Amino acid sequence: MDAIAAAHVICKAGSVLSPGWVGFENGVIREVGSGEPPAELNVERGGPRSILMPGLVSAHAHLALGGLRHVADDAGFMEWILRGILPGIERVNRVENGFLDGALQSARELLEGGVTLVGDSFLRLEGVFALRTTGQKGVFFQEVFGSLADDDATYLEETMSALDQLPDQLGGFPFGYSPHTPWTCPAEVFRATVARARVEGRRISTHLAESEEEHRFFVERRGHLYEMSERKGNLDRYRFGMTPVAYLDQLGILGPDVVAAHGVQATADDIEILAGTGTWIVHCPTSNLKLAEGIAPVAAMLDAGVNVALGTDSAASTGKLDLFEEMRTFVHVQRGAARRTEGLSASVAIDLATRAGAAALGLGDVTGTLEAGKAADVILIEADRRRHGPWDDPEAVVVYTGTPDDVVLVVVDGAVRHRRGSLA
Amino acid sequence: MDAIAAAHVICKAGSVLSPGWVGFENGVIREVGSGEPPAELNVERGGPRSILMPGLVSAHAHLALGGLRHVADDAGFMEWILRGILPGIERVNRVENGFLDGALQSARELLEGGVTLVGDSFLRLEGVFALRTTGQKGVFFQEVFGSLADDDATYLEETMSALDQLPDQLGGFPFGYSPHTPWTCPAEVFRATVARARVEGRRISTHLAESEEEHRFFVERRGHLYEMSERKGNLDRYRFGMTPVAYLDQLGILGPDVVAAHGVQATADDIEILAGTGTWIVHCPTSNLKLAEGIAPVAAMLDAGVNVALGTDSAASTGKLDLFEEMRTFVHVQRGAARRTEGLSASVAIDLATRAGAAALGLGDVTGTLEAGKAADVILIEADRRRHGPWDDPEAVVVYTGTPDDVVLVVVDGAVRHRRGSLA
Repeated sequence: MDAIAAAHVICKAGSVLSPGWVGFENGVIREVGSGEPPAELNVERGGPRSILMPGLVSAHAHLALGGLRHVADDAGFMEWILRGILPGIERVNRVENGFLDGALQSARELLEGGVTLVGDSFLRLEGVFALRTTGQKGVFFQEVFGSLADDDATYLEETMSALDQLPDQLGGFPFGYSPHTPWTCPAEVFRATVARARVEGRRISTHLAESEEEHRFFVERRGHLYEMSERKGNLDRYRFGMTPVAYLDQLGILGPDVVAAHGVQATADDIEILAGTGTWIVHCPTSNLKLAEGIAPVAAMLDAGVNVALGTDSAASTGKLDLFEEMRTFVHVQRGAARRTEGLSASVAIDLATRAGAAALGLGDVTGTLEAGKAADVILIEADRRRHGPWDDPEAVVVYTGTPDDVVLVVVDGAVRHRRGSLA
Repeated sequence: MDAIAAAHVICKAGSVLSPGWVGFENGVIREVGSGEPPAELNVERGGPRSILMPGLVSAHAHLALGGLRHVADDAGFMEWILRGILPGIERVNRVENGFLDGALQSARELLEGGVTLVGDSFLRLEGVFALRTTGQKGVFFQEVFGSLADDDATYLEETMSALDQLPDQLGGFPFGYSPHTPWTCPAEVFRATVARARVEGRRISTHLAESEEEHRFFVERRGHLYEMSERKGNLDRYRFGMTPVAYLDQLGILGPDVVAAHGVQATADDIEILAGTGTWIVHCPTSNLKLAEGIAPVAAMLDAGVNVALGTDSAASTGKLDLFEEMRTFVHVQRGAARRTEGLSASVAIDLATRAGAAALGLGDVTGTLEAGKAADVILIEADRRRHGPWDDPEAVVVYTGTPDDVVLVVVDGAVRHRRGSLA
């Protein structure tokens, strides 16, 4: 049996062994212990300021957009889509392997930053190839649109037969479906995709309550999106006069198998709906802030019992893929907005970025915490004497001072996938 | 003449040469040019993704608190002071060289993160010794309290004679005075200290409108501080029924020589006062957020023409001293709170963290931008192909993706003070 020993082992949020060790065999954790590991094990040891913890989970990403970093850095959400993302995607599309290069760059940045599991949503499969290359775990969500189609029936037929091809194309890679957003995926298409997912037992990902523009579209029947849809004569494909969350709830779509990114515009009623249905919100703080969408009411969500995980979103919206900074930003910004610290601790951040992320992606039994029987998905952090410490609370060290550069070892299913400085 | 050449030179916010170079002699910049430097210069060259820019400025710090990192990480402002800072300071005080070790640790963390100029406020001088060791520039602000003294007259006499000793103790190191806060430094002591500073032509630093507790004390005459002061029979030392900003304005204290940290609780009227008096606000976003004080209305301040600079505050409140992350947090959080991107760009962040910081500390003619005649205070950043880029906008690369680990060279007054990996 192999083992990794460290000065501190964060088995899961709130549960720390100092010192401790994790023993694993055939990719699976066999034992987690405090103190020194048994002499007969083949032990790799961290230094006196080392922290071993579950690999981080980015529950919402678009790996293939790695080449679109810094598009329309100066723009808010709608302008960023129109002036940054759409022309950017066209541009990358004209470059040979453009999306593959972007996906590899994103996957490696996440891997080197300690992310062992990624929820990747996109129209194309490059993210899957990238995760296969790096050896990270992932769940791929095939995006489904529809708003630009001539009619829903034809679009649905084509889409469903495309989805039939996915298992062969993915060769065993876990996947689900992502009706893109309530405003880009009309009601019938959304419902049919979700129905299919539920028959097949697959996870559903979407973007929900992300932008003011989306909120305006559904609640106030106005704005750029509404006018666009009006011009196309498409408005009968949606229902109005309610929030996007209430709309999806009415369609029967929400539930614990739905992984909804963002939730920035969620109202108090929306939060009740999300909590009542067990729907997951993947909080992507940097993306939301940088695009000037507002501050997601995550403190209120956690109070209400909403299932919350963390995500980096894509490099196109955040600039950098750094789940340490996302954990920190979550704690800091929620503290600033809610003007309290209760429930907004380093330990909560670690829970959202590990256990909750795995559970959101349907892999809660497989990974997300360090315990016997789960996959050996672990990272080793070597904190710097000068920039971190003191050491009383390793969770605080990870969240308040941790950076991707502190990650010295990333292990997925027991195999070393990254050692500081080079890909293994 | 020595020179540093780079793929991009950010001379000051909004002014970029690609490629470019900076030539300097005897610690002073002689020439800044685009393209290739003249062959006769002794040139150090950055790589194809290098960015040369003015050294960063943390206009508000408490270097000596470096050993108090992670004190009361779970607490908001008042509890953090009572349960974290006060006992922490007592603890460090009992350790030989405790404050000096903390100051050296803070100064080195800032230096390695590209900070060439620090505004350091404290009761003791260890920060100055630290900055002398690292070779960074600094302005030291001697803190003045008074709220715990028996009477103002005796305290003032003792304080003023202690301040008489400063020039000798500091041996030419630039300094000013810091009446600590409106609630720890009574009106007469505050006024006398500021009067002295103005006679001597020195800068004044303070903490202002930082916490809800302070706001409550002055505006509502209630809360922990008010009760404490009431028990001591000290209330006649302050004036109530107005905001802390209005109070200092009434005392005749505000002005362009005042460097006020935080301003989180500033009202619309306060912002007008700050703009009208030319008072500097040093925005310390992470510190404010982590201590759950709220979100400083910096977007509104910038709209109103308030002078704003950036600061890290101390490691005791932020966990890490990273001005790249402070720049990024400023842009992100203000965008999220103001729900707009206009005026909240990478370029504005760089301006606050360089030119504005130097001007706040009274050194605007000496440093803060790269131009002939100013000190050669420059940093070289080597951006990473995988984690940064594309390269159209080096200011965006610095702000949205930059980290202390990207800083490969720090030059102060023409002398190399840090090279990636070791102190020069």
